Amino acid sequence: MDKIKRNERIAAMMHAFITRPGHYLSLNEFTERFGAAKSSVSEDISLLRRVLEDFGLGTLHTIVGAAGGVKYVPAAEGEPVDAFLDELGETLLDPARILPGGFLYMTDILCRPDAVSRIGDILAGRFREKEPDFVVTVETKGIPVAMMTARALDCPLVIARRDVKSMEGSVITINYVSASSRSMQAMSLPKRAMPPGKRALMVDDFMKGGGTANGVRQLMAEFGASLVGVGVLIATDFPQEKKVQEYTSLFTLYGVDEAREHVELHRTGKKSG
Amino acid sequence: MDKIKRNERIAAMMHAFITRPGHYLSLNEFTERFGAAKSSVSEDISLLRRVLEDFGLGTLHTIVGAAGGVKYVPAAEGEPVDAFLDELGETLLDPARILPGGFLYMTDILCRPDAVSRIGDILAGRFREKEPDFVVTVETKGIPVAMMTARALDCPLVIARRDVKSMEGSVITINYVSASSRSMQAMSLPKRAMPPGKRALMVDDFMKGGGTANGVRQLMAEFGASLVGVGVLIATDFPQEKKVQEYTSLFTLYGVDEAREHVELHRTGKKSG
Repeated sequence: MDKIKRNERIAAMMHAFITRPGHYLSLNEFTERFGAAKSSVSEDISLLRRVLEDFGLGTLHTIVGAAGGVKYVPAAEGEPVDAFLDELGETLLDPARILPGGFLYMTDILCRPDAVSRIGDILAGRFREKEPDFVVTVETKGIPVAMMTARALDCPLVIARRDVKSMEGSVITINYVSASSRSMQAMSLPKRAMPPGKRALMVDDFMKGGGTANGVRQLMAEFGASLVGVGVLIATDFPQEKKVQEYTSLFTLYGVDEAREHVELHRTGKKSG
Repeated sequence: MDKIKRNERIAAMMHAFITRPGHYLSLNEFTERFGAAKSSVSEDISLLRRVLEDFGLGTLHTIVGAAGGVKYVPAAEGEPVDAFLDELGETLLDPARILPGGFLYMTDILCRPDAVSRIGDILAGRFREKEPDFVVTVETKGIPVAMMTARALDCPLVIARRDVKSMEGSVITINYVSASSRSMQAMSLPKRAMPPGKRALMVDDFMKGGGTANGVRQLMAEFGASLVGVGVLIATDFPQEKKVQEYTSLFTLYGVDEAREHVELHRTGKKSG
């Protein structure tokens, strides 16, 4: 291929970074692919970083040295993220979402690729410093957002199942008490899903009593893994005492009033009035 | 914001397209955001398209007119896609994947964000002309790849559940016969998951007899939706007669020989010798 012009390099490099967030790409890969000097590629990266930061889209993170490289870190805060979360919060307040029993229908949001991609980027940002090796979730509704969080962190997803499927080989099953219904539940993970000594981040769509998260902690212990964080889209305000001590939620649900057709939900830490 | 330089525009536009594949962005959005003339933005788009096509990364598709715009279509064929699928095929041949009963462990691949993103892009490419409004899958293992296919098509995902959850309101449940085990199965979808008259694309990780796909067709009929395609990562060669007539698989599994520790699998349509 002929020598690539600067604009073309810029375009191709942006594509490479955005297509695989969180993944380190080496400068050598770019210099070879584009037949460009290292100094030129470094300048390109500075420009890309500036554009990402100026538009609130994220940044490029550099590790220097032989094993070094550059990775794209999607924005997890700032103006566009705030605007997205505010709009999402508005959507969740729609009384048409109220289900019998005071539940909130949100499956539609959890299945919109553009929405879950952004939620995943934001949750990833809250836990990047914990350096998780895996994202773990329990089937079913939380899988898309957990997948997108794993994507933003460039680490694999692990899905615990509620029923034991023979098609995945030997499994480890734990029993745990559901905090809300006080009933016994089980979750399983194939033995080969996770080598020992790993750091796991749990991601789910919703948390009430934290029983599921506590179950995941037990399950991770069985795999010799440590649970380094719990991140959910929505946590209920009640009960205040959850079965896990530390967790992060993007929204807090204060109540669903079926009779008055009213949902009270705020961005976590931003309840006003 | 000051007037943006050309290479900065190029970078920001590439970000916008790649972040939301399949979604039409209007030229006006770009001219306003960057304070640039329409002719300049058009030139930028030509350059971006050329770079994407030259590197085998996909293309930009333009619709002209008032409701027009430009969208990113990820590559679904060509050299990088072939290289990816060939490597994926090699990975699947590993005898360590053989599970008791002649099943193949592939959960790890189905949970690697980089792999499922690419598989989703490729499956999306096979069905883009069918213009699906929804991607539908049945829990659990196929969800990540179905989500990524939906992402590449910029349409929502719908997940049919095997058990009926009260938290999603009224559901429609159908019963169907599993082709392989000849047992009765059920799958459910919330009534509000899909308005009538839609076009659905089923995506799953694996197909043997096609019973699940046939169940999805019944379920879609209950929702007044038509099933416009069935796409799976791997289909077994046996039985040749599936319960659905038309489907597309990226790989065909000819057999898993537990005793000889041998997997026979080829890219569909590319069995050689």
